[in-house]
Amino acid sequence: MKRRLLLVSNSTLHGSGYLDHCQQHISHFFGKDVKRVLFVPYALHDRHAYTKTARDKFKTLGGGNTFRLLKSLYDNKVVTEIRRRVLEDGVPYMGSSAGTNVATVSINTTNDMPIVYPPSFSAIGLVPFNINPHYLDPDPSSRHMGESREQRIIQYHEEPDTPCVLGLREGSMLLVEGDKATLLGTTKARLFTRGKSSAEYDPGTDLSFLLTHAH
Amino acid sequence: MKRRLLLVSNSTLHGSGYLDHCQQHISHFFGKDVKRVLFVPYALHDRHAYTKTARDKFKTLGGGNTFRLLKSLYDNKVVTEIRRRVLEDGVPYMGSSAGTNVATVSINTTNDMPIVYPPSFSAIGLVPFNINPHYLDPDPSSRHMGESREQRIIQYHEEPDTPCVLGLREGSMLLVEGDKATLLGTTKARLFTRGKSSAEYDPGTDLSFLLTHAH
Repeated sequence: MKRRLLLVSNSTLHGSGYLDHCQQHISHFFGKDVKRVLFVPYALHDRHAYTKTARDKFKTLGGGNTFRLLKSLYDNKVVTEIRRRVLEDGVPYMGSSAGTNVATVSINTTNDMPIVYPPSFSAIGLVPFNINPHYLDPDPSSRHMGESREQRIIQYHEEPDTPCVLGLREGSMLLVEGDKATLLGTTKARLFTRGKSSAEYDPGTDLSFLLTHAH
Repeated sequence: MKRRLLLVSNSTLHGSGYLDHCQQHISHFFGKDVKRVLFVPYALHDRHAYTKTARDKFKTLGGGNTFRLLKSLYDNKVVTEIRRRVLEDGVPYMGSSAGTNVATVSINTTNDMPIVYPPSFSAIGLVPFNINPHYLDPDPSSRHMGESREQRIIQYHEEPDTPCVLGLREGSMLLVEGDKATLLGTTKARLFTRGKSSAEYDPGTDLSFLLTHAH
């Protein structure tokens, strides 16, 4: 499998500039030979402005609204083509936030508001598990009564045949090269497996076991 | 129009017990003549336990996951029947959180995780606008970089023909009696109208203008 993916939790980390926290990994990931990057601006409404910003600042990512992004990928009939190019031809894929969600099995574990209705929640499927980007620990001082992220993911796992969910905290990212997956960045990630206790992993951990289809 | 609705932002308010913050309004809303309440437990996985808890504590609401609730309403083919009974026969409807979302035009403005795929985001349509329950103001001290609730609703309004969104903060609820709508509770509500500035309304405000189909 030629797959090469860089799946980033978030595009901006508090206190630093756009993509600063992963700039080094991006440069290394694409390398010196890559001259052109295909930027998919579907996740925001003003695609022209978004593309211009991306070009200006090398924002080679797919942030924005996950539902809007996935719906446009289906509307433009490119889901299968992206999967084929990445998995068979080895074209490197990088996404952050929404762009990370659509790279996985499904968008069932996005945090975004469902502002449009895509024809399916099934996504590109570049990895056999799901990701929750911007993963957030419960805030014990909060007075807000909405469900915690953990509660939401546990509700997801009450449904049959639901895959693992990797909670990528802001500042973390997953690098996939073929059948090898490594957690990068500055924050830990939390893995939720249906019917099991969740587990924490430090940056640098080899997470290749997630790429086997048992997960 | 015989419609009578009590749409609550949230079932539990920080520092008080389940439904405490709206108990008085609930008693007044159903009145002394109501002997039986139909409880729809679809929004949580364990329907038996949820129903038992609801019965025990008079939790006459529809909290839980909005996607799961709406999908089950469609799967059980009761969306149209509920609409007919509420709008034509005057059966009172009360919901909180997920139960509030499904009472509106669509679930496009829920905060929930899309853990299941309903056949449509269109909802029961008891009012001609949408609600965002658990509405949350941006926290200036937060280091989290996810979109604010306001940004998400503004993204929704970038889509064509999207209705008004009433942001019901925790502690607030909307009472609808026929063509009269009143904001109740202890917190203000924020109204988002496509192409206009948002507006704040105090508890006690008459919001009947929201029930005209211009909104």
